[in-house]
This record gives sequence, structure tokens and C-alpha cells, in this order.
Amino acid sequence: MEKSQNEDAAKAGDEGTQNPQALAALQDGLDSITHNPPIDVESLLPKLVKRRVNALKQLQVQGTHLEAKFYKEVHELERKYSALYQPIFDKRRDIVTGAVEPTDEECAWHSDQEDEEGLAEDLNKKVTVEEDKKEETATEEDPKGIPEFWLTIFRRVDMLSDMLQEHDEPILKHLKDIKVKFSEPDEPMSFTLEFHFEPNNYFKNEVLTKAYRMKSEPDTDDPFSFEGPEIVDCEGCQIDWHKGKDVTVKTIKKKQKHKGRGTVRTVTKQVPNDSFFNFFNPVKVSDGEMDEDSEFTLATDFEIGHFFRERIVPRAVLYFTGEAMEDDESFEEEELEEEEDHDEDGEEDEGEDDSKA
Amino acid sequence: MEKSQNEDAAKAGDEGTQNPQALAALQDGLDSITHNPPIDVESLLPKLVKRRVNALKQLQVQGTHLEAKFYKEVHELERKYSALYQPIFDKRRDIVTGAVEPTDEECAWHSDQEDEEGLAEDLNKKVTVEEDKKEETATEEDPKGIPEFWLTIFRRVDMLSDMLQEHDEPILKHLKDIKVKFSEPDEPMSFTLEFHFEPNNYFKNEVLTKAYRMKSEPDTDDPFSFEGPEIVDCEGCQIDWHKGKDVTVKTIKKKQKHKGRGTVRTVTKQVPNDSFFNFFNPVKVSDGEMDEDSEFTLATDFEIGHFFRERIVPRAVLYFTGEAMEDDESFEEEELEEEEDHDEDGEEDEGEDDSKA
Repeated sequence: MEKSQNEDAAKAGDEGTQNPQALAALQDGLDSITHNPPIDVESLLPKLVKRRVNALKQLQVQGTHLEAKFYKEVHELERKYSALYQPIFDKRRDIVTGAVEPTDEECAWHSDQEDEEGLAEDLNKKVTVEEDKKEETATEEDPKGIPEFWLTIFRRVDMLSDMLQEHDEPILKHLKDIKVKFSEPDEPMSFTLEFHFEPNNYFKNEVLTKAYRMKSEPDTDDPFSFEGPEIVDCEGCQIDWHKGKDVTVKTIKKKQKHKGRGTVRTVTKQVPNDSFFNFFNPVKVSDGEMDEDSEFTLATDFEIGHFFRERIVPRAVLYFTGEAMEDDESFEEEELEEEEDHDEDGEEDEGEDDSKA
Repeated sequence: MEKSQNEDAAKAGDEGTQNPQALAALQDGLDSITHNPPIDVESLLPKLVKRRVNALKQLQVQGTHLEAKFYKEVHELERKYSALYQPIFDKRRDIVTGAVEPTDEECAWHSDQEDEEGLAEDLNKKVTVEEDKKEETATEEDPKGIPEFWLTIFRRVDMLSDMLQEHDEPILKHLKDIKVKFSEPDEPMSFTLEFHFEPNNYFKNEVLTKAYRMKSEPDTDDPFSFEGPEIVDCEGCQIDWHKGKDVTVKTIKKKQKHKGRGTVRTVTKQVPNDSFFNFFNPVKVSDGEMDEDSEFTLATDFEIGHFFRERIVPRAVLYFTGEAMEDDESFEEEELEEEEDHDEDGEEDEGEDDSKA
């Protein structure tokens, strides 16, 4: 969990650890894989030696502060490169939306020939299986840009499709671009995801934002746990829904029986509704104790924010085609250890009605 | 595996990936954790749309080259910080070797009071259990510096203790310091581990080196798999052993029976011997096919090199005290999935003799 919230540069630290990553046993066999018994070396040391070890710990604390400065410079470097990537991302947006038609030269791709020759048979098979879809798309042979580009990514990436509801899909067809903005050097370290929409019938906002604040300093109480910047808080935005279009609430009908008279009347009530757009109204980080569910929800939110920043935005086309999934799979197996069932679908047993508020 | 060979900054990429790294499911439940069926989206697209997707892929390739430049700048940043860390590391070496006695101020450490009061009972218990050791150390109440500092780390860290043999231990007592040197900007990207030894009776070298060469460019054939610099090769050094002191070979006695005469004579033969010092004589990366064992040995070597660079050298005191192990444990569980038994201890069934060459 923590690892996923770190800055890029943080990973190698533990990937080595981690990663970051680098604990495997030699060919001598893996018998000794468990740690040697945790002897408290320090308590066994002569006083004068323990004193010197404490001096090394002081030096180590100095090191963590240097490390924090290093990560700040990495953040600056990311900001610098963000500006260099921007023309590429703008071009991507223009092609996706159909604002620009790429030239033949810009569209040359080495696997085209393979696709059309060697893989022809394979493709024919697939086309048969997916006949319906093919026909659908065939009827509109030249749609504008790349239709449903971002929606397709939402559908294909598990972490996003888990949030996606049927009623979100027509809205996400209007998503034009997702951008990452990094905080300026004089601001507290953070990054903001910007979701840019075409004018649509659902809400008035052109941009929905989700900001993630990072902690980039070692803890005074526990300096040695510092592994680089970590997401510690996030903030969504107000969505100006058109009347009756808010998919994050639903109206339910409830029958009330009058105790004395025995008459029944129907009342309507608005309750929260599952939707990707709840992403813009996250759980608040509170200073007091948070319950386990809120902590889990928040930790998941931080991972999603990190994933948008590190993977989806920089490599969108590879998630659209599915090429990125293969690379992520090995990663995913490592990360997904906490397989608890956080099912929060336990709705009240009431009559439901899908009409929107 | 690959992750552990990447540069620091590479991790966040996949930790997001991976961390680098960030695939977990929302509170809606983890049922949909498997990837949606891998539909070949591209083959179903109208030709004109597929053409535009190819344009996005060309843009994506441009992105990977920008990413490679980013990682080169991160490497530069690491080189810059390496120089800033050096005074801290030099001070550490001087305290470890006893060249410098730290002042009282330099040795103040907040947990001292706890140790001496609150934890007194715990410590007493431990002291009883470890009575023998305590007595041993008590007899030499003021040794020079911090005796066996690096050897203790080798003993405590599984990845290193797996390489460590009993005959390596007296040699490693002479290890004064381990340094990481980064390649200059005009050189191919690499880093070198330097093991600095006191004058000793085992070999003449003052420094043993292990250099790791990194690949920091996207593959032309597979640009999208690029996740940052990756270790691709390593080179050890010649150890000038004093006569009879080379622990990496052993002399075995073999009885030979003369077929005709039936007489038996004993011949001696030098064979490789397990030792940490084989670390300086690694398997060569070959262009042709490597067998699975060599590949495993090499991959493990790369992980160890990465681990020295990212964890052991920057945080040595925390591995000495054991504090670093707690942080690494969660990492380790994630990484250690390949639990194959690469036991190569199947020696020939011959009489062995521990005499050194």
C-alpha cells in the first residue's frame, strides 16, 4: 500500500526493496529464507560501542533529510518533463477528439503488415466471434476521432471498471482528456488530476479535478521509515449536475405504515448511488480514528490517483489496446495480497427506483 | 525481477505499478479482479480509427524516449546526491573503524532513556538468555570502533547470509566500508560497488569491485516495455589471494584405482568452493542461449547488486541494528514468489578435504 503512494523515485529505494525489490535467495537454496532470529544486537553491545552506534543513527537521520531533498528534486524533474510531454499529450487529445487528422506518415506502424497478412486468419476467427460488434461499428465507418477512447480504458482496467456503473458510461463518452498537474516548487508537494469533458447534458463543469497532497518529509518520530513522498490526503470538486442528471444519488420509494391508523403512504428519499463520479467526493481524512472501511476506501482512492498519474495518463493508448495489461499483470499479483471482501452493497431492504434526483 | 533492477525513479512507474504499484479493487468488492476478457479492440476498429490509434502509438514511442531522458537526469541527480551523502558515509566509516571517537553530543539518541528505564526488564530477560554472548563481549569492554559492523550486516540480511560461508567470516571482519560509485554523464550508465578492506592476511587488494552496467534506452523492437534503467551485465575483479588463502577453491582428494594393476593412488584436485567472494567472479552474460541455472544465478546477482546500492550502503546502521528488516519484510513477501529449489549442492561423491588451494 505505502509503496504505491510513493513518488517514482521512491520505488527503487525499496523495490531494491522492493523493489525495491530485491530479495531472493542464492542458488544455495531457499532454506534460510526466513530472517535470522531477531537478536537485539544493540542490547548486547558494550556501552562504548552502543554509543558509537547511536552516532551512526544520528548520521542516518541526516541522511533521511538529504533523501527528502533528493525526492523534491525528482518532483521538480517530473514537473520539467511534464512540460516536455505536454505537446505529445495535446496531439493525442486532438487525434482522440477528431480535432486533427494525422498524416499517413504519422500513422505508419510496423505491425500493420503483419496484421493484414500473417494474422489475417486469427483476425477472421475473432471477427466471427464478435460479429455483432463488428456490424455495429461497420455501420459508422468513419466516426470522429477515436470514439469512446477513455471509456474503453475505464472498461478495460480493473481498478477503474470496479468503479464504473452502467449509468456512468454515457457520461464518460464525453471525456476528452485526463491531465496531471504538478505543484509548483514553492507550494506543498501535490498533484492534481484534471478530467476534461466536452459540453454535455449531464453537468456544467468543463473540468473535474481531484487533487492529491503528498507528505515529503521524514517523520520526526520515525525518520527511518521515510521512503519518499507519500499521498496523505485528497480533495475532489463540486459537480454542477443538470437537474435530474446526478448519477451519484438515487431516489428510493419507501412505504410507511401509520402505527395508529394502519394506513400506508409512500415517501421518496434520496440515497447515495454507486458511480465513478463519487471519485470527486472522497472520504475526508480525519485527525481522529477512522473506521476500517473508510481507511480502506481512502487507501484505494490513493492507489487509483497514483495509478492515473503513473500509468493511465502517460500510457493511455496502451491501456486502450490492452498492451499495457500484460506488463501490469506481474505487478498486480504482487500487490494484491489483501483479498478481503469489502462488500458494502448491503443496501437497506427497501423498494428501489432508478429515477435520478 | 525486472523491477528490482530499475533505477529508483523507475519504481513509482510500476509500483503505481508498482508500485509503481497500485492495483486494488474498490469497495464494490473484488469479484471483478481478473482482467476483463482480452478483446482485441484494435482488430474490431474501423480502418480509419485504427489508423488514428497507430498515430497514438507513434506518439507513445516518442514518449518512451523522453522517459529515457528523464531517467538519465534522475541518474545525474543520484550522482549529485551521492557527493552530498559522501561526508556522512565517510564519518560513518571513521566511527566504524575507530579512526574517530564521536562526541557526547553526536551520540545522543532519544531511545537511550527508554532503553535504560522502561525496557530494563525486557533487556534483563534477553541478557539472561544470551548470557554467554554477553560474557564474551564483556571481556573486551572497549574494542576499537564498532567491531564486525559489516560482517554483522552480512549475517543478518538473508540475501547476503545465503552467500556467506564460515570461512568468509574472518575475512569480512576486515571490511571497512562499502561505497557506490555512479558512472559519469559521458559514460554508458553503470554503478560500481567498492568493498574497502583493511590490510589483511588473505589478499593484497585494498578494494574489491563489482561493476553493474545498465541499459537505459527503450528496446527498438519493444519500446513499450521500457520502465527505466535495468541492470544488464556485471563485472567482478581479480582477487590477489595470498598463497593458500583463496576460499573460493578447495582441494579434494580422490582415490584412483588402476584398472589393470588394481593399485589405488590418491590424487588431489582443485574445485570451486562456495564463498561470498565468488561475488567478484560472476557468470558471464553470453550472447547465445544461457542455461536456466546461469540465468537464475545472474538475476540473483543483479538483485544483490541493486540491494547493496539501494539499501545496504545508504542504510547500513539500520541493517546492523535490525531496524531495516521490519520495513523490508512486507516487500520481501511480495517479491519472493519464485520458490523454486535451486539447490546446486549436489557435489560429486568424492572424499573432500577442506584444505585451501
